[in-house]
Amino acid sequence: MASFAFTIDAECPESWARAGTITTPHGVIHTPIFMPVGTQATVKSVSPEELRAVGAEIILANTYHLMLRPGSELIAEFGGLHSFMHWDGPMLTDSGGFQVFSLGHLRKVSEEGVAFKSHLDGSPRTLTPESVMRIEAELGADIILPLDICVGYPCTTEQARAAMETTHRWAERALAAKQQYRPEQTLFGIVQGGFDAELRQQSARFLGDLPFPGLSIGGLSVGEPKAMMWEMLRATTPALPRLKPRHLLGVGSPEDLVIGVGLGMDMFDCVLPTRVARHGGLFTPHGRVSIKTARFRTEKGPIEEGCDCYTCRNYSAAYVHHLARTEEQLYYRLGSIHNIRFMLRLARSLREAILTGNYPQFRDEFLARYTPASEQVRDAQREKWKAARAQRD
Amino acid sequence: MASFAFTIDAECPESWARAGTITTPHGVIHTPIFMPVGTQATVKSVSPEELRAVGAEIILANTYHLMLRPGSELIAEFGGLHSFMHWDGPMLTDSGGFQVFSLGHLRKVSEEGVAFKSHLDGSPRTLTPESVMRIEAELGADIILPLDICVGYPCTTEQARAAMETTHRWAERALAAKQQYRPEQTLFGIVQGGFDAELRQQSARFLGDLPFPGLSIGGLSVGEPKAMMWEMLRATTPALPRLKPRHLLGVGSPEDLVIGVGLGMDMFDCVLPTRVARHGGLFTPHGRVSIKTARFRTEKGPIEEGCDCYTCRNYSAAYVHHLARTEEQLYYRLGSIHNIRFMLRLARSLREAILTGNYPQFRDEFLARYTPASEQVRDAQREKWKAARAQRD
Repeated sequence: MASFAFTIDAECPESWARAGTITTPHGVIHTPIFMPVGTQATVKSVSPEELRAVGAEIILANTYHLMLRPGSELIAEFGGLHSFMHWDGPMLTDSGGFQVFSLGHLRKVSEEGVAFKSHLDGSPRTLTPESVMRIEAELGADIILPLDICVGYPCTTEQARAAMETTHRWAERALAAKQQYRPEQTLFGIVQGGFDAELRQQSARFLGDLPFPGLSIGGLSVGEPKAMMWEMLRATTPALPRLKPRHLLGVGSPEDLVIGVGLGMDMFDCVLPTRVARHGGLFTPHGRVSIKTARFRTEKGPIEEGCDCYTCRNYSAAYVHHLARTEEQLYYRLGSIHNIRFMLRLARSLREAILTGNYPQFRDEFLARYTPASEQVRDAQREKWKAARAQRD
Repeated sequence: MASFAFTIDAECPESWARAGTITTPHGVIHTPIFMPVGTQATVKSVSPEELRAVGAEIILANTYHLMLRPGSELIAEFGGLHSFMHWDGPMLTDSGGFQVFSLGHLRKVSEEGVAFKSHLDGSPRTLTPESVMRIEAELGADIILPLDICVGYPCTTEQARAAMETTHRWAERALAAKQQYRPEQTLFGIVQGGFDAELRQQSARFLGDLPFPGLSIGGLSVGEPKAMMWEMLRATTPALPRLKPRHLLGVGSPEDLVIGVGLGMDMFDCVLPTRVARHGGLFTPHGRVSIKTARFRTEKGPIEEGCDCYTCRNYSAAYVHHLARTEEQLYYRLGSIHNIRFMLRLARSLREAILTGNYPQFRDEFLARYTPASEQVRDAQREKWKAARAQRD
């Protein structure tokens, strides 16, 4: 079996949506796909067997967190992340770049790499394009990402350009450095360019021409309005090679998945479904509901009528409400399982819609039915999470 | 199938240990047995399927917590606790008496019953022997307990005698009140008597002569030295009817199970195995270890060599250590599963030792190998838990 292959199974004639198949050393992925995030070598509250049962085909782990604790050398001693965390399916690790810019303190970027202080103990650390390749080789994921610079929102065109150009040079260094490590790992490039359509196109073309078998789109969903994110994708996608899978980093919600697919994205990852679940937000075809509200106290039906997840097959919404209100651990599991299953079933439905030529209709019907959380609600939640995180640190 | 039956399968000739079989409407229980505690209609962190997989034959739920939240009437509307919480095996509910005395505020005992304020919102509540029978009928467990008075430690003989006498009168009222509810439920009596051997014997004889198909021993493990608890059991057991199962309420640790069986106890329940697990304490045949200590950081083997639990079959101690140190939710599950499995395997080993005439040898070997947590460590933990609980309220 080749270590990596991507084939396109169908393309939507009216949008940029496509259905594909990715082959990795640990198994096959059917796109479009949602990737649950296991930040610290565990998808919060959910076991590997439960991930399989909800249809997860690939999961993501965070290099930044794992290099700090327990350390990538230790994980290598255990044969890599797969055996360390008991997940034998495909896996992707990010580069740590995003977390350095969002979590690390006192970071200092140079041509060489980035110096920062650990958010755990303040200890000084550095990452270079080369050291990231070593660390990710130690972690052993199937798909790995190179060190990049994420400028955030808002930023000037000059900041975005400088960050993109450094990201490009680091991408070339990462490709060179990867040679000495594990050939069965596949390195994707990361497209940057801030919120400037021309820079985005330039980055897509530059990275698309390098020998990366796939491309991740970075630097989006960092606080900008949704409309701006979609505008950036509309500029980026046409500049990307058709035959390489495209991964939209850190996105997103159910509606993001539906829209992103139409803008040519194949892979999505986000902590949102599990994080929202832990705060009581559960997905339904009509939008997110808050399971803690009084209306679920006596609800005999499941969270979502017809849902095939473990939670909905075995528990009333009233019981899940009870667990959420009493802050019982089982709640976090049941809520996370439901939301991950919702995302994966949605991804599968999108794939089937593409295969049968019905993507535009599926998208329109979904968006007509599904009420997204308002930007205001999302902002409030982001603040709450930040506060909770700051307290924990 | 009779709603309740108890048969003795074997008795140890050198101690009071016996192996038995209890039949209930939801299945059969092999004694000696440990019953995991699902205070709020969930054994913390563990799913019903996982309880089955670790060999749980019966679980306990707390009437006090459930009557306050979500309320026994609501649970009755869902067909009782079994269907509400998705557990179809045997279940026992306590009477709420113990929690009223340990958690409720401003309690006032009268001949009629006990008035107290909810630990959740301070709202005034009352429990009487009659209302407890109604509430437990609504919860629908297989085995139910009557309202009793737990005096705690230390207490005077006069306090213990008065509480015991009230408990006896309440026991008779509970028996009378139960008539109007569900005949398939089995009401056990609760033996009290503080720390006075004569009172304990008197209570055992009094309750043993009433038509209770089983007896629980209450008021122990409430802060007294271990030796005193065993002394009370040595006084109590000979006064108990041989043909009724005996349940030692709220006990205990692995060594308590081993010793308690020799003193004639058949059933045990305690939050200790799951609570200790959540704080990092995991059972091994040599005693409790703290998984958070540095020595497990690089441990490639399981927590307990040869353990057949899900955790030990699939994860290194180093991974469990990592999850515990990062306070990941999956840790609480993996730790709880291991400790419950340890208790249930221990109960099964005790049963087999009794059936093969080897209980005394098994007990002596176990106690020679197993180093219990010192009373000092246990006291410190109790204080920590109390503080954590106070904070949560």
